[in-house]
Amino acid sequence: MSSTPLLIRGGTVVNADRAFRADVLCQDGLIVAVGESLEAPPGATVVDAGGQYVMPGGIDPHTHMQLPFMGTVTRDDFFSGTAAALAGGTTSIIDFVIPDPQQPLMDAYKTWRGWAEKSCADYGFHVAITWWGDSVHADMGTLVREEGINSFKHFMAYKNAIMCDDETLVNSFRRALELGAMPTVHAENGELVFLLQQEIKKQGITGPEGHPLSRPPAVEAEAAQRAIAIADVLKVPIYVVHVSCAEAAEAIARARAQGQRVYGEVLAGHLVVDDSVYRDPRYDFAAAHVMSPPFREKRHQRALWQGLQAGHLHTTATDHCTFCAEQKAAGLGDFSKIPNGAGGVEERLAVIWDEGVNTGRLTPSEFVAITSANAAKLFNLYPRKGCVAVGADADLVVWDPSATKTLSVKTQHSLGDFNVFEGRTVTGVPSHTLSQGRLVYAQGDLRVERGSGRYLKRPAFGPTFDALGRQAALAQPRAVTR
Amino acid sequence: MSSTPLLIRGGTVVNADRAFRADVLCQDGLIVAVGESLEAPPGATVVDAGGQYVMPGGIDPHTHMQLPFMGTVTRDDFFSGTAAALAGGTTSIIDFVIPDPQQPLMDAYKTWRGWAEKSCADYGFHVAITWWGDSVHADMGTLVREEGINSFKHFMAYKNAIMCDDETLVNSFRRALELGAMPTVHAENGELVFLLQQEIKKQGITGPEGHPLSRPPAVEAEAAQRAIAIADVLKVPIYVVHVSCAEAAEAIARARAQGQRVYGEVLAGHLVVDDSVYRDPRYDFAAAHVMSPPFREKRHQRALWQGLQAGHLHTTATDHCTFCAEQKAAGLGDFSKIPNGAGGVEERLAVIWDEGVNTGRLTPSEFVAITSANAAKLFNLYPRKGCVAVGADADLVVWDPSATKTLSVKTQHSLGDFNVFEGRTVTGVPSHTLSQGRLVYAQGDLRVERGSGRYLKRPAFGPTFDALGRQAALAQPRAVTR
Amino acid sequence: MSSTPLLIRGGTVVNADRAFRADVLCQDGLIVAVGESLEAPPGATVVDAGGQYVMPGGIDPHTHMQLPFMGTVTRDDFFSGTAAALAGGTTSIIDFVIPDPQQPLMDAYKTWRGWAEKSCADYGFHVAITWWGDSVHADMGTLVREEGINSFKHFMAYKNAIMCDDETLVNSFRRALELGAMPTVHAENGELVFLLQQEIKKQGITGPEGHPLSRPPAVEAEAAQRAIAIADVLKVPIYVVHVSCAEAAEAIARARAQGQRVYGEVLAGHLVVDDSVYRDPRYDFAAAHVMSPPFREKRHQRALWQGLQAGHLHTTATDHCTFCAEQKAAGLGDFSKIPNGAGGVEERLAVIWDEGVNTGRLTPSEFVAITSANAAKLFNLYPRKGCVAVGADADLVVWDPSATKTLSVKTQHSLGDFNVFEGRTVTGVPSHTLSQGRLVYAQGDLRVERGSGRYLKRPAFGPTFDALGRQAALAQPRAVTR
Amino acid sequence: MSSTPLLIRGGTVVNADRAFRADVLCQDGLIVAVGESLEAPPGATVVDAGGQYVMPGGIDPHTHMQLPFMGTVTRDDFFSGTAAALAGGTTSIIDFVIPDPQQPLMDAYKTWRGWAEKSCADYGFHVAITWWGDSVHADMGTLVREEGINSFKHFMAYKNAIMCDDETLVNSFRRALELGAMPTVHAENGELVFLLQQEIKKQGITGPEGHPLSRPPAVEAEAAQRAIAIADVLKVPIYVVHVSCAEAAEAIARARAQGQRVYGEVLAGHLVVDDSVYRDPRYDFAAAHVMSPPFREKRHQRALWQGLQAGHLHTTATDHCTFCAEQKAAGLGDFSKIPNGAGGVEERLAVIWDEGVNTGRLTPSEFVAITSANAAKLFNLYPRKGCVAVGADADLVVWDPSATKTLSVKTQHSLGDFNVFEGRTVTGVPSHTLSQGRLVYAQGDLRVERGSGRYLKRPAFGPTFDALGRQAALAQPRAVTR
Repeated sequence: MSSTPLLIRGGTVVNADRAFRADVLCQDGLIVAVGESLEAPPGATVVDAGGQYVMPGGIDPHTHMQLPFMGTVTRDDFFSGTAAALAGGTTSIIDFVIPDPQQPLMDAYKTWRGWAEKSCADYGFHVAITWWGDSVHADMGTLVREEGINSFKHFMAYKNAIMCDDETLVNSFRRALELGAMPTVHAENGELVFLLQQEIKKQGITGPEGHPLSRPPAVEAEAAQRAIAIADVLKVPIYVVHVSCAEAAEAIARARAQGQRVYGEVLAGHLVVDDSVYRDPRYDFAAAHVMSPPFREKRHQRALWQGLQAGHLHTTATDHCTFCAEQKAAGLGDFSKIPNGAGGVEERLAVIWDEGVNTGRLTPSEFVAITSANAAKLFNLYPRKGCVAVGADADLVVWDPSATKTLSVKTQHSLGDFNVFEGRTVTGVPSHTLSQGRLVYAQGDLRVERGSGRYLKRPAFGPTFDALGRQAALAQPRAVTR
Repeated sequence: MSSTPLLIRGGTVVNADRAFRADVLCQDGLIVAVGESLEAPPGATVVDAGGQYVMPGGIDPHTHMQLPFMGTVTRDDFFSGTAAALAGGTTSIIDFVIPDPQQPLMDAYKTWRGWAEKSCADYGFHVAITWWGDSVHADMGTLVREEGINSFKHFMAYKNAIMCDDETLVNSFRRALELGAMPTVHAENGELVFLLQQEIKKQGITGPEGHPLSRPPAVEAEAAQRAIAIADVLKVPIYVVHVSCAEAAEAIARARAQGQRVYGEVLAGHLVVDDSVYRDPRYDFAAAHVMSPPFREKRHQRALWQGLQAGHLHTTATDHCTFCAEQKAAGLGDFSKIPNGAGGVEERLAVIWDEGVNTGRLTPSEFVAITSANAAKLFNLYPRKGCVAVGADADLVVWDPSATKTLSVKTQHSLGDFNVFEGRTVTGVPSHTLSQGRLVYAQGDLRVERGSGRYLKRPAFGPTFDALGRQAALAQPRAVTR
Repeated sequence: MSSTPLLIRGGTVVNADRAFRADVLCQDGLIVAVGESLEAPPGATVVDAGGQYVMPGGIDPHTHMQLPFMGTVTRDDFFSGTAAALAGGTTSIIDFVIPDPQQPLMDAYKTWRGWAEKSCADYGFHVAITWWGDSVHADMGTLVREEGINSFKHFMAYKNAIMCDDETLVNSFRRALELGAMPTVHAENGELVFLLQQEIKKQGITGPEGHPLSRPPAVEAEAAQRAIAIADVLKVPIYVVHVSCAEAAEAIARARAQGQRVYGEVLAGHLVVDDSVYRDPRYDFAAAHVMSPPFREKRHQRALWQGLQAGHLHTTATDHCTFCAEQKAAGLGDFSKIPNGAGGVEERLAVIWDEGVNTGRLTPSEFVAITSANAAKLFNLYPRKGCVAVGADADLVVWDPSATKTLSVKTQHSLGDFNVFEGRTVTGVPSHTLSQGRLVYAQGDLRVERGSGRYLKRPAFGPTFDALGRQAALAQPRAVTR
Repeated sequence: MSSTPLLIRGGTVVNADRAFRADVLCQDGLIVAVGESLEAPPGATVVDAGGQYVMPGGIDPHTHMQLPFMGTVTRDDFFSGTAAALAGGTTSIIDFVIPDPQQPLMDAYKTWRGWAEKSCADYGFHVAITWWGDSVHADMGTLVREEGINSFKHFMAYKNAIMCDDETLVNSFRRALELGAMPTVHAENGELVFLLQQEIKKQGITGPEGHPLSRPPAVEAEAAQRAIAIADVLKVPIYVVHVSCAEAAEAIARARAQGQRVYGEVLAGHLVVDDSVYRDPRYDFAAAHVMSPPFREKRHQRALWQGLQAGHLHTTATDHCTFCAEQKAAGLGDFSKIPNGAGGVEERLAVIWDEGVNTGRLTPSEFVAITSANAAKLFNLYPRKGCVAVGADADLVVWDPSATKTLSVKTQHSLGDFNVFEGRTVTGVPSHTLSQGRLVYAQGDLRVERGSGRYLKRPAFGPTFDALGRQAALAQPRAVTR
C-alpha cells in the first residue's frame, strides 16, 4: 500500500457493465475518485492513459505456484509467479491448498499460507477435498468461518492419488452448501483415464502423444455432467474449472438452461492452442504441453469462445503450473509420468484480448467480465476487486490496445523454461499495472516487492446463495398423511 | 425535475451487479450521492427505507399507450398509462410508433410524439417498419441521426395489415445495421396464422378459444428462428419481443450458444398466466386475455423463467395495451376480430418479484437486471437509467419485500376495465417511486403531473455494435485470384 | 411344438417393415408359408383373423420371475409369469440372472436355469455383473461362448448390495466388447439415492411418497450419461434399461446424434402412469407402485413416447416383478425397505397399442418394432423371433383392434395382487396367441403347459458389432516417431 | 423383363433388417426364390456371388435428367443418365417435373413423361409446385389419383424464378395432406440468397468462390426450419431434400425428437466433398462444383454421417444434374449465372460404401436402408423395390466388397465432362447389376436397352399417413360452450 496519490488521466474506464471516459485517482491503496477531468493532488504520480483503457486488474482464479506434484515442485514460487502475473496485468490470483489423502486440511492450509507469504500480488486459496472423514467435515467449517475460504476443489481424476470418489463428492458438496461455500471440480473420469493409460501403453504408445488419447473429451464431459447432476440434486451451486471441450461446455449450458447455477472456467491455453502440439517429434516440446485436460482439436476452441460469448462460461484462468524440461523428462518412455502443467499467468490477458476483443467476439466490457469481474463476484471479492469504482482496491491495469508484443519464453517473467504461446504476436498489452495503488509495472519496467501481497479472506454465502437458500426452503417436500 | 433534495435512508441498494447497504441522495433530478450514513441536506425530504430495497425504477420496453389498432383506440393514453407505471415502480417506458403501410415514417413519428406529450414518466419510442421503399430507407436515417431512435420493430404477423414480408425484413435489418440501430421482431408466421384462423372458424370454433389454436407455439418459434437466421447472416444484433413459448426461447438460446447477439423479452403475463383462460365460458373474461402471442400451456412458463435465470432471455415487459369489454365485443362470433391486447404496466414488477425472487429463482440483483438494467443497456439508456449511481437520473423505486397486496382491477390505476392478474396476492410491492428525483408515489398516494415526462433520445451504436463492427470488418471475404 | 398345422386366415400381417394382407401357415413350431389365399392342409386348425392383425408375438426383454430380492421372492414364478405373458400376446421373455456379490456367476446361472424350467413360453437371460474379479472375467467368457448369453446387466444403484462402481463398469464393459456381448445398465446414481434416502427420512418422510423424492430424474440421467460415456470411450454398444425420464432419453438421443450405438428401453408403466400414485393416502396402493426408477411427472411420459416415435428409444418392456401387499408391508415406516417392483407382462401390448397406435403416435409396424422386432434384433434372436416370415418360430399374436377390455387385477393371469393399470379400458387386445405353433390363448381361454417353454441361446456378435469392429480397427492410434 | 431365369449363387443377401447367406432366383422380372442351395432351373444364367453381397438395387430419389435450367439443358438425358445409374448399381431413379410459373402442371407432367420414355431403368417423378392457383389445386388431385404421383417438391430458393413464397407453401402442403402425398422442399431462403449475391458481387467477388458465400448454412437451416414448422402445424409429413449442413440436420433431429414425421435426404457429394473446391484457381474446376446447396466446410460432413447413423437422416441421393464446361462458362464474371448442378448417379453407392461401411460407420444393412429401402418406403415403392424378397422386382446389385476402383470422368458412363469424385479410389463396387431380372451390368460390361425402363406409379397414403390420419382426427379441437 502506498500513500502517494496516483492519477490515471485521459483513459477510458472499462467495467463489466460499461465503458466511459474518466480519470481515476488512487490513494492509500484504494480508488478514491473516478470522474472527468480530475485534478492531480499535490505530489501525485500521473499516468497518461490517453488512447488507452483503464480496467480492473485481472484475477486468475486458477494457479498453482510452488506446487509439489508428481514428485517434484513447480518452478514458479509465489513470488516469481505473482510477479509474472503483475507484469501481464493480473493483480490477484486464487491458488490451491491440496492436502494429501488423510492429511488434516488445517495442516495443509497452514503450509500453503506459509509458502504464499512471499507473494507480491494479493492472493486467496481454494482448498481441495481429497478424502473424507469427520475431521474433514470439521475443518471445512473452520476454514470457511475463520479463515476466509469460500470454495473447495474436487479432483475427479488422478486415481490412486487425490481422486475423489462419488461418496466424497456427495458428502463434500453437501457440507459446502451448509457452509455457503462453492464446490469446484476438476472434471475428468479418473477410472477411464486409468484404463486408457494402460491400453495406450499396451499399444506401444509411450510418448506425449499418448497423453491426449488417454483423456478424450468424453472423459471430461462425463465427469462434468456427473458433478453438475450431483450439485443439481443437492441444490448447491457449482463451478467447473478448466472446461476444455465442447461437450463439457454443452453440459454446463444445458444445466444452466434448466435454471441451475453452474459456472464454467476456461484456460487461456485451451482457447488458442490445439492438440497438434502433442504430435510434434520433439519430446521436450510435446511434453511441455502436457497438462490435464489436454489441448484439444480446433473445434473445441470455437465452442469455448462461444461459451464465453453466450455467457455459459464465465471466467478465464491459466492453471499456471510450471515444470521445466528436466522435470518433464520424468515421463520419457511413459507419458503418464510427465508432470502435468504449463504456464500462462503473464500472457492470459493479452492472448484473450487479441483473440477475443480484436476479432469482435467480445466487447471490452465483456473482456473485463471474463478476466476479472466474474471471478470476483463468484468468489465473493466484488466490488473490492473486479471493478473500477470509488472504494475498490486500486488494482488496475492500463491497457494499450494498439501496442503489440511477441510472446516468448525469452521475455517472460515466469521462471518456467517454456511458453505455450511462443511466437504469437498480440495487439493489446498492459502499459501499466497498479497493485494496492502502487505502480508495479510501467512500460516494461517491473517493480515488485517480495511479500507485499496480501491474503484475501473471502466471505461465505456469496450472492448466488441468496436465491438457493430460498429455493431450498421452498422445495422442502412434505409427508403424505395416511 | 425538482430542486428539493430527497434522501432515501437506511435501505439496501440493489443494482444488477450487486446489493449493498447505502443511503441515496437525489437533487435536481439526479442521484448526487450513494453511501453509508449520508447526511440530509437542509430542507430535504427523507424517505425511510429501513428493511427495504432501493432499486432503479423499472423500464418497460414494450407498451402501447393510446394505440389505434383494429379499428379502435386503447383506453390508456400516455398520461394514464405512465401514471399506472409509476404506481407500480416503473419509471420509463418505450412505446411504439406504428406507421400504416405506405405512410411516411416521419409523419407517424410526429403524430406519436404529439400524443406522448401528456406522459408523466420518461418515455422513448421504437419505430415499426411496416413497408419498404426509398423514403423508408431515408426516414430510418433521419430518425436515428436526428431523433434519437435506435430500434426498429417488425411485425411478422398480421397479414393484410402491418405484416413484413421477408424482403422488407432483409432490407430493414440491413439498414438498421448500417445505422447502428437494433432491429426487433414480433415473431409469428402471419401466413400460418391466417390459414389457421380460416380453418378453425370452418370447424365451427368462433369464440376466444380459437385464438390460441390459431397461434400455436410452432408459429412463433418458426418466425423467431427466421428472424434470428436473417440477423445472423447479416451480422446484426436482434431483439425478439414477447417470447412466449419454450420453442422460441430455445431458438434464442441456440443462436446465443453460437455466439450470436440475440436478445429476448418476456411479458409478465406470459410468466404466470396460462391458456386455460381462453376456455372460460364467459366471453368477456376469455376475450380480455386475447393478445398475441397468446397465453400458453403451463410448461412454457417454466421455460421462460429458466430463460431469465440462464440469461438467454434478458428483459421483461408488458405489451400494455388496454381494450375494454365494449371494444373486445367486436370479436363476438369471430375471434379473429377481437382487438388484441391486455394490461400490466403497473403490476409487472410485483408479479415478477413475487414469482421470481420469493421463489428463489432470481436474486434481487437479477431482478433489477431483467426489469430495468438490461433494457437500459440494450436500448442505450444506461447508466442514465437502470442503475443506482451518482449521476444517474433519480428514477427509483423503494421496494418493500414484506408488504403484500392483492392485485385487482378495482385498485389499479390503469383505465382498462380488466386485470389479467386479478386476485393474485403478491408479497413485495413498491412503497415509494421517484421520477426525476420527485416522489410521485408514496405509500399508495399517486402524485403525478400530466406532461412532466420527458422524451428520451437514445443514441445509436450501443454497446453490442462495437464488437459487431469489428466482426463485420474481419469477416469481409476475398476474391480468388484466377 | 406341435405337428398339427395351423392356418391363420384373412388377417393383415404386420412386420416392422410393413403391413400386408396375407394368411400364415404354421407347422412343427415354425411358420411355413405366408401368402394370399393359402390353402389349409388336411387336419389343420384354422383361425379366422378377418379384420385383425397378425403380428410377431411380443418379446419382453426385462422381467424378473421368481426373483429373490430385498429378503423376499416375487409372487410370479416362471410358470405363472410366462402364462400371463402369453395371455397378453407376449411369447418370449428375457429374464435376469443376478449373482450375489462374490457369488460365482456360473453358480447363479445354473440356479436360474433350474428355476426357469417350468416356463410355458420361450425365455432367455441377461446375466448381472455385481462384482469384479478374475473368475467373473472368465465366467463371462464361458457364458457367452457356451451358454448363449449375449448381454450383461449392471446396476448403478442399490448401494451396499448389487451396485457396480465405476471400476467394475469399466472392466465389465471392456470384457463384453471383447466377447461381442451387449452391456446393459440400470441407470441410477446409487450414492445419491443413498444420501437422499437418509435426508428424506430425516425430514420425517417415511411413507412411499419418499420413494420418488429419493430418486429424482437427475439421479437417473446422471447414471445414464456416465454409462453412455464409458461405452463411448470403450467403443462398445450399450443398452439402457427402463429409461423413465426426459433427461435420460435426451442423453441417449444426444449420444446417438453423435453416431454412437446406444439403445433405450421403456417400460409400459412409465408410459402411462404418473407419480401422483405415491401421494395416495392408502399405503398399500402407494407402495404397490414402488419400483425403480419410480413413476414420474406427466411431462416425462410425453418425452418417452416421443423417443419411441423418433427412434432413439427402441424397445418396450415391463420389469415385471410382483410383490404382494404382505411383502410391500415390509416398508411400513421406512419407504427404503419397500420391495421394489410391479407387474405388467400381460398388459404391456394392450396398453401400448391403445396409447400408441390408437392415438396416431405409432403405426402398427412401429408397434411391432418396439414390442418385438427391435428386442429380437438387439439381442440377436432375429429373425427367429420378431418377424412373421417363413422359417421363423411360430410365435404369433392375432390382434383384434376393435375389441376392448378393462384391465384389472380381478381378471389378470399374474399371481400378483395388484395391477398398476387397474381400471384402464383399452381398445385393441389379443384374440389368439401362438407359441411354437400351438394355440396357447384363444379368445380368453388360456391353454398353457408347464415346462413347454425353451431356453433361448443367443449368439454373440450381433449385428451392431460388425460396424464397431471395423471402427475399432481403424481407430487404432499410432505412436509418433521421435 | 426377361423370361430367362437367373440364379445368383453363393452370396450374402443384405436387406435393411438383416443379412444372411442365400441364393436368389429371378424370373420374369421378379425374384421368385430366396434360400440356401437353390437349384438353377434349366437354361438359367448363373451369377457367382461368392464372397459378395446381394443387395436391392439402389434408388436415387433425386435426379435431374434432361433438365432445362438457367437457359440450357443438362447433358445426361434419361437414357444416358439411367445407364450410368445401372453401371453403378442404382436401378431406379425419381426425377422431377418442374413446371414454369403459370404453366399448367399436367402440361409439364406430360412433357417430362415423354422425355423419360428413353430410360433404361425404372423411374418415377416428383412434381414441383412453383406457383399457386385453382388449376394447381385441381391438377395435384389428378396427378395423385390418376398418375401415381405421391410427392410434390417446393423450391424455397431461386427468387424471381421457381421460388415458392410462404402462401404457396402453406396451400400446397395442405393440399398434399388431403391427397396423401409427401411434400418435399429444397430448403434455402431465397430472399437472403438474392441479397447476398448482390452484396458479394458489390464487394468485387464474381468468381465461383462467391457461390458458397451467397448460400451459407444459416440460409439453408432457416428454410428447413420454416418448412418443418409449417408441416408441423398442418400435421403433414415432410421430406427435406439434399440436407447439406449440420444446422439443417439438427433442425430435422429436433423436430423428430418431438415426434414429428420429418425425413432428410443427403447427397453423396455433400458427404465427402468440401468447400475448398470453390477456391481452386481454375474457373472450370470451381464452377463444375457449383450446385445448391453448395459443398460445405468439413465439419458438416461429420454431421451428415452422424445423421445417417442416428437415423434422423434417411436417404441418400445425388441431385444428378450435369452441365458441361461450356455451359458452366455462362457464369464467367458472375457466379450467380453459373448453371447449378453436378453428377454422381453412378458413383453414389461406391462412395457411400467406401466411406460409410468400410469405416465402420454403417453396417451393410444400414447401407441398404439409406441407399434403397428407406426411399422405397417413404415414396411407397416398398417392397416392390428396396428389398430382396420373393415377389419383389428383380432389381439387384451384386456387390464386391474387396474390388477397388478409381473414380474418374474418363471411365464414367455419364455424358457429363466432370466428376466431383475424380481420383478417389474406393473399395467396394458392383460386379453385376440386374434390372427387371436382366443382367444389365456385368463386370464392367454395360448392356442397357434404350426405353426398357418403366414408369413407376406410386400410390398415395403411404405408411406414414396412417398414423397422421388418426392424429389429425384426434387433434380436432372443440368449441367452448358459452
